[in-house]
Amino acid sequence: MPTTPSDRLRARGIGLPPPPTPKGSYAPVVRAAGLAWVSGQIVVDGANVVSPGTVDREVPSDVARDLCRRAVLQALSALQHELGSLEAVRRIVRVGVFVAVSPGFHREHEVANGATDLLLEVFGEDGRASRTTVGVAGLPLNAPVEVELLVEAP
Amino acid sequence: MPTTPSDRLRARGIGLPPPPTPKGSYAPVVRAAGLAWVSGQIVVDGANVVSPGTVDREVPSDVARDLCRRAVLQALSALQHELGSLEAVRRIVRVGVFVAVSPGFHREHEVANGATDLLLEVFGEDGRASRTTVGVAGLPLNAPVEVELLVEAP
Amino acid sequence: MPTTPSDRLRARGIGLPPPPTPKGSYAPVVRAAGLAWVSGQIVVDGANVVSPGTVDREVPSDVARDLCRRAVLQALSALQHELGSLEAVRRIVRVGVFVAVSPGFHREHEVANGATDLLLEVFGEDGRASRTTVGVAGLPLNAPVEVELLVEAP
Repeated sequence: MPTTPSDRLRARGIGLPPPPTPKGSYAPVVRAAGLAWVSGQIVVDGANVVSPGTVDREVPSDVARDLCRRAVLQALSALQHELGSLEAVRRIVRVGVFVAVSPGFHREHEVANGATDLLLEVFGEDGRASRTTVGVAGLPLNAPVEVELLVEAP
Repeated sequence: MPTTPSDRLRARGIGLPPPPTPKGSYAPVVRAAGLAWVSGQIVVDGANVVSPGTVDREVPSDVARDLCRRAVLQALSALQHELGSLEAVRRIVRVGVFVAVSPGFHREHEVANGATDLLLEVFGEDGRASRTTVGVAGLPLNAPVEVELLVEAP
Repeated sequence: MPTTPSDRLRARGIGLPPPPTPKGSYAPVVRAAGLAWVSGQIVVDGANVVSPGTVDREVPSDVARDLCRRAVLQALSALQHELGSLEAVRRIVRVGVFVAVSPGFHREHEVANGATDLLLEVFGEDGRASRTTVGVAGLPLNAPVEVELLVEAP
């Protein structure tokens, strides 16, 4: 029975992508006060944004939902790299989800479930975070979604 | 003379709505490091969003301001449910206000005062939070405003 | 060799603007749990927003980048006023950058570098924060950028 985040990832055959490289003068993760902030993640494959465009008009909602899942995997990769192991994460505190939307799209919350569903899968109830989801006018490099994480890591 | 948040609510005849039900795989409130994060609140009445639409085009600015006030009441209800009592809140730390805007609307800060005015009423100077207010392209379920809270709760 | 944030500002001939005045019922800075949250800063000169408009359509990208720098200087002024000295800042934890964008603009991250480049200049590696950058539909008073800071200040 898998009992750690790494076990659960392994049991599901989910590998983490390489730790993300910041696109500017900032850090992937910063720790303070027993917490760790992960920078906003857009989903990249090497140097390229995956599925650029606006959700609903160019990027279907279910693709955007899967990108939220992948953005969280990038964030977990950044945390693993910074903390040494995902087992150092005591719980997920907050998830911020930004969805680049076309006018008339109002299902940002369904897109965001791609992020928070994965956190529940990997961390169990310790992965049930607070969440704020909004629709934005645009994101860096025309990414359709961006996800930021805050975790407790004493 | 009312001296606690609950007293002040009572003295003003303000009742709290039922604690909000998350619209997805997340928690209403998460505590860590002596702080408590409340998920972004859109104003609902049962299963329905109140006054859906974009501020200025479909939803008048003063209605949106009142919705910010109601979003904070939902957040306080979530906190009361999680902490047992509003008296466990030492101070309000940060308020994030997202306003779904039509082009040409630039008074997001007036809308956001609906949230922070109420916090001052209920918590006195301990309710004077830091604040970030932005205009967004859309919100879940076509809500016109969304408000998130961070409080100190040792 | 300049070794403190104030020394580095002085060595570069950078003066801080006056501490910002909140445009509503909130505080410039709130401290809790060894951290300090600075409210979202739009760049003002007295009562007026500097260079109002949307980035790319009315406000060139490089002007917006410089405004991010100035927004951080306002935030540092708020911190200096609250903490007594910038030397009380142990490190910069998180920077949130909101860029009011026209459709088709996807270089929010370059604009945001104006904020985080300055933090590196002033605080060295302690200034390398986590960062979340998004494009928004509008900002208070038609400001083109808004920047919020979170710092560690025991």
